[in-house]
Amino acid sequence: MVFVKRIVLDVLKPHQPNALEFSSSIAKAGSDYRVHLTVIEVDERTETLQIEVVGNAIDFEAVQSTISDMGGSLHSIDEVEVQSETDAG
Amino acid sequence: MVFVKRIVLDVLKPHQPNALEFSSSIAKAGSDYRVHLTVIEVDERTETLQIEVVGNAIDFEAVQSTISDMGGSLHSIDEVEVQSETDAG
Amino acid sequence: MVFVKRIVLDVLKPHQPNALEFSSSIAKAGSDYRVHLTVIEVDERTETLQIEVVGNAIDFEAVQSTISDMGGSLHSIDEVEVQSETDAG
Amino acid sequence: MVFVKRIVLDVLKPHQPNALEFSSSIAKAGSDYRVHLTVIEVDERTETLQIEVVGNAIDFEAVQSTISDMGGSLHSIDEVEVQSETDAG
Amino acid sequence: MVFVKRIVLDVLKPHQPNALEFSSSIAKAGSDYRVHLTVIEVDERTETLQIEVVGNAIDFEAVQSTISDMGGSLHSIDEVEVQSETDAG
Amino acid sequence: MVFVKRIVLDVLKPHQPNALEFSSSIAKAGSDYRVHLTVIEVDERTETLQIEVVGNAIDFEAVQSTISDMGGSLHSIDEVEVQSETDAG
Amino acid sequence: MVFVKRIVLDVLKPHQPNALEFSSSIAKAGSDYRVHLTVIEVDERTETLQIEVVGNAIDFEAVQSTISDMGGSLHSIDEVEVQSETDAG
Repeated sequence: MVFVKRIVLDVLKPHQPNALEFSSSIAKAGSDYRVHLTVIEVDERTETLQIEVVGNAIDFEAVQSTISDMGGSLHSIDEVEVQSETDAG
Repeated sequence: MVFVKRIVLDVLKPHQPNALEFSSSIAKAGSDYRVHLTVIEVDERTETLQIEVVGNAIDFEAVQSTISDMGGSLHSIDEVEVQSETDAG
Repeated sequence: MVFVKRIVLDVLKPHQPNALEFSSSIAKAGSDYRVHLTVIEVDERTETLQIEVVGNAIDFEAVQSTISDMGGSLHSIDEVEVQSETDAG
Repeated sequence: MVFVKRIVLDVLKPHQPNALEFSSSIAKAGSDYRVHLTVIEVDERTETLQIEVVGNAIDFEAVQSTISDMGGSLHSIDEVEVQSETDAG
Repeated sequence: MVFVKRIVLDVLKPHQPNALEFSSSIAKAGSDYRVHLTVIEVDERTETLQIEVVGNAIDFEAVQSTISDMGGSLHSIDEVEVQSETDAG
Repeated sequence: MVFVKRIVLDVLKPHQPNALEFSSSIAKAGSDYRVHLTVIEVDERTETLQIEVVGNAIDFEAVQSTISDMGGSLHSIDEVEVQSETDAG
Repeated sequence: MVFVKRIVLDVLKPHQPNALEFSSSIAKAGSDYRVHLTVIEVDERTETLQIEVVGNAIDFEAVQSTISDMGGSLHSIDEVEVQSETDAG
């Protein structure tokens, strides 16, 4: 099977919810996610974020809908790391 | 549950209390916080600081009110790292 | 015998399938592949990718046909690491 | 309790006492201090120093009065690292 | 005795054989060679490569004739690491 | 007690004795000194050196007189690292 | 005693013997020398090399005469590392 181990996303969000709530909600989408959010640019109404999610088996669709639910919009996927593993591995 | 493991804040403070007292007060807000304060710019009446707090479960609101209590103002959250952990983990 | 341990490829792909599906398909071509996809440039209809595949014995032709099957085109091989190993090794 | 683990100071000193005597005196203010003095600029009558003190529980006031006693003047605190520790820790 | 442990070569090759076949052939010249090929520049008919070979006792002449046999030409030796070892070592 | 663990010196020397003899003489001033001499600039009659001495308890005056004895002149102390240690440590 | 542990030399050599033969001959001057030769510049008749020799007790004069014997000329000693060791050490 192939598991997603790491994704780096370019995301635009309104000022609220703040960076802490935003990253926490994404982390809640999985049981072992580590989310590293960096604010790249602050504009009058929005913030551009780089969001890195690391985990053993990231559910990309769950991450994506969490971002939409909080009013964010996914601009692009910048990096992906996936790993093919045999079942015994 | 989701725990905040690291935050990087952009903070403005008056010259008093000094950087040492400022960082110590923030550290007192938790039982295992490591606070790394860097003075970025010194102006006539204020100092711009980068404050990194690392801990196992950072209470952001406690950090934020400590900053306000000392006359500082939180300009922005620059980075956040959060971790989702199962209870057994 | 000589085994391919790592290849770095310069690839052009249409926007669909997205970076996640693209890298997962390549990873499925082997039982232990780690695929690290980085989006280098986004144009109107295409994306330029750097794709690094790491594994113990990479089957380059399988990687290459997976890329073609998804509508991608291999522009160049940028790096290769191979290892000669004796059978007992 | 909160302990000061590392401070970086910007200090001006006359040419005498020299950098070796200056840093040794600061180290004597504690039982485990490591002092790393770097001469940043040499002027006709003074030298600008960066002084980093690392220890388990730095006594900032003792460091500060040692600097004054040797004719130095503390221009600014550039960095501070503090750690909150429970008594059992 | 003196053993060659690492060489870095500047090599020009035609487009065929490709980088994968080229590096694999060089690796076959020894029983433990690790070959790291990087494409530096692609021209109309040729490619400039940096080829690093790492091994316990590299046979430079074997590497050199493999390069010639595939139509490549060795422009220069850029780096060499050799080690003198006593027999017991 | 306070021990000098590392000093970085800016030194001018005539071409003779050469860098090897110069650094060896400084190392002889102690029983465990490691001396790392780097030639920064070569002029018609002199060479500017950076000399780093590392040891458990460097005797600065011995280093200084060795430099003078060989015709060198100490331009400045660029860095000092000292450590306060309790007798039991 | 003082032992030379590492020297970095700036050397000019004719094109023949090549970099591989040149470094191997230097390595043969000792029983444990590691020689790292980097070609810095290639001119019509000569090559400028940086040669780093690492060993437990480098015999500088043996290195120097090996260089001369192969038609090379030592332009300068760029770095030296020496270590003072007690006999028991």
